[in-house]
Amino acid sequence: MAVHLPPPDPSQLHPVDGIRLGATAAGIKKPGRLDLLVMQLDAGASVAGVFTKNRFCAAPVVLTREHLASAHAPVALVVNTGNANAGTGADGMQRATTVCTALAKLIGCDPQAVLPFSTGVILEPLPADRIVAGLPAAVADLRADNWAQAAQAIMTTDTVPKAASRQIDVHGKKITVTGISKGSGMIKPNMATMLGFVATDAQVPVALLQELLQETADDSFNAITVDGDTSTNDALMLIATGASGVLIDRTQAAAYAALRRAIREVSIQLAQAIVRDGEGATKFMTVQVEGGRDRAECRQVAYAIAHSPLVKTAFFASDPNLGRILAAVGYAGIEDLDSQRVDLFLDDVQVASAGGRHPTYREEDGVAVMRKAEILVRVLLHRGAASATVWTCDFSYDYVKINAEYRT
Amino acid sequence: MAVHLPPPDPSQLHPVDGIRLGATAAGIKKPGRLDLLVMQLDAGASVAGVFTKNRFCAAPVVLTREHLASAHAPVALVVNTGNANAGTGADGMQRATTVCTALAKLIGCDPQAVLPFSTGVILEPLPADRIVAGLPAAVADLRADNWAQAAQAIMTTDTVPKAASRQIDVHGKKITVTGISKGSGMIKPNMATMLGFVATDAQVPVALLQELLQETADDSFNAITVDGDTSTNDALMLIATGASGVLIDRTQAAAYAALRRAIREVSIQLAQAIVRDGEGATKFMTVQVEGGRDRAECRQVAYAIAHSPLVKTAFFASDPNLGRILAAVGYAGIEDLDSQRVDLFLDDVQVASAGGRHPTYREEDGVAVMRKAEILVRVLLHRGAASATVWTCDFSYDYVKINAEYRT
Repeated sequence: MAVHLPPPDPSQLHPVDGIRLGATAAGIKKPGRLDLLVMQLDAGASVAGVFTKNRFCAAPVVLTREHLASAHAPVALVVNTGNANAGTGADGMQRATTVCTALAKLIGCDPQAVLPFSTGVILEPLPADRIVAGLPAAVADLRADNWAQAAQAIMTTDTVPKAASRQIDVHGKKITVTGISKGSGMIKPNMATMLGFVATDAQVPVALLQELLQETADDSFNAITVDGDTSTNDALMLIATGASGVLIDRTQAAAYAALRRAIREVSIQLAQAIVRDGEGATKFMTVQVEGGRDRAECRQVAYAIAHSPLVKTAFFASDPNLGRILAAVGYAGIEDLDSQRVDLFLDDVQVASAGGRHPTYREEDGVAVMRKAEILVRVLLHRGAASATVWTCDFSYDYVKINAEYRT
Repeated sequence: MAVHLPPPDPSQLHPVDGIRLGATAAGIKKPGRLDLLVMQLDAGASVAGVFTKNRFCAAPVVLTREHLASAHAPVALVVNTGNANAGTGADGMQRATTVCTALAKLIGCDPQAVLPFSTGVILEPLPADRIVAGLPAAVADLRADNWAQAAQAIMTTDTVPKAASRQIDVHGKKITVTGISKGSGMIKPNMATMLGFVATDAQVPVALLQELLQETADDSFNAITVDGDTSTNDALMLIATGASGVLIDRTQAAAYAALRRAIREVSIQLAQAIVRDGEGATKFMTVQVEGGRDRAECRQVAYAIAHSPLVKTAFFASDPNLGRILAAVGYAGIEDLDSQRVDLFLDDVQVASAGGRHPTYREEDGVAVMRKAEILVRVLLHRGAASATVWTCDFSYDYVKINAEYRT
């Protein structure tokens, strides 16, 4: 089902010195399926994170924030699927703490040096006993070249594991950036029901790492949507192990720019993979809004289009019912928008201008674009110089099927 | 498919003195189907309207606003389905004017005394010739007891005609309020892809009528959603023909209150009918949010729930995956919401409290409620005394089917 998303080639996922990964099937929801991941960091790593803004954020999100703010440098991350541990109140906090404590004991660190992550069904108690029982096997599996299996272990309704990797040269030394992500429903910025873990062996001061992550998130994971639902559990983590011994900070403009680009490329690839594997997705759409007064209004218009069930079902059907896109532009909330100046393109085909159908537009040209699996929707507002891009997918029978039957 | 929505009983639709209605099959999109409605008003009527806030509002919406603001008292309303005349630029304005001019000639009035309305597909030229050709038949059909046929003539993807009627006694005289509506997709406040026409034979000054309409709209048509898409063509019109000879204004508190209540009841019934007939709807949900600081934040939370595709698909499946409701409450945008204080009920079953599952909640009780065709979702925020209600429907395979195949 996924749109142009081959499974990652393990030989192309470069290990990152200073981080080892181990996975196991702990039987959290179903037996015989990888559902528990441990990542262990060597001493000296910096860790940055951005998290869901949902007010019902999950217990592990609360705990990871607390642990990151504590005096204990992170030593391990633990991720379970099958249960989100969200909407679980004080009991959920206790269960997440139980998992951290058990892992800390196994690998010999303080419980606050463990960062927990969960994804899955909301409002059900976390089966902490099964997770704790699975931890020894995950720890026994820890190795540096285990990214492909790690990508598999964090999947929920994902149909394809998601991983990406880049290498750059800095001062003649090879620096690696490798990451994994998961998510395919309840996907909306700030953030998706999504988890993302990106690691580099560069050494980056933690304040700079946090800044770099925030900036990257806005251009990648915060620019995607499947269904407009913001999850309770989203987290994107950026880890700099420092194991390469190469320090990169702002004083080294070229090296910093190269690292920034590599992290950005990996993050965009991981974020787009979530949309390509969106629940029931048959098409991948890039919604590009140009000529706005500022980026915020361009994003507003792009999201109005990307969230419209009418637009999404029309793309599913390859039906160039493109007035629906104009309608979404019109209700996006720009009070003083002049609809007479809006241009709409599908790929290179101009569909609308001057508030109506473009004189040269022919429906067969629209259909030809809509039949493709990857489509660019381009809207020109002619109000300013800002622009924004959002990636989304279409809305099919299978989205309903997957979400009507998620728990069964 | 519609949820508890029997077709209106023509004998219960009381004619409104001073307004006559006539319909015909003009072959606008398909032959042999009622698609053109004319309503003619006797002299002395007041007309108020509220319209879509979509910036791509349709040509007829622009023209109706202009004509209402002109010196010419409205004499007729003309409604076509099958084509929205939206996203049609200057040419669309011309075609709408052509229709007004033709009808004005037929019934002998100024073109500016005609108010045009359209609904249907966007971005396609209005077949004005077919409409003009159909007008004589619609005019020939004009009669006071024609509300049921009028309701039929304005349907698009609606499966059931929508009409409602009330009578009240004022100073020993019978005052009637009767209305019709249409719409089942692209439905969201401000307003739905919906048209609503409500008429009374009371005499009401136009400024008061406009105020009354705005207030009524907020509690009825602006409190429903099917898919979150705001149409280009929405219009709700309130007509006071004055033919009863009974003047009702603020100086007559009791009569005004009674009229207000009747108009409100008719409008809520018509608005709810749109949700009950929502595209693919199998369930009707009332989302009631209480204990907010103000009505705006209650509406915000109610709409977050009502728009969530995950919530809507869960209701379709009768799957009490109710964490999705909490997640929607959490991302509704109340920055300082204390999730620990939120209570969630399905009908009388308390599902969540203290940020988690309510101690007495049993899944079988949740399932029992979700299997019903009408469900109350009640959220208590415990922040203040304000509340708001929104009506919506579930999200089924048929929604996708209907919208993927709309034009074929």
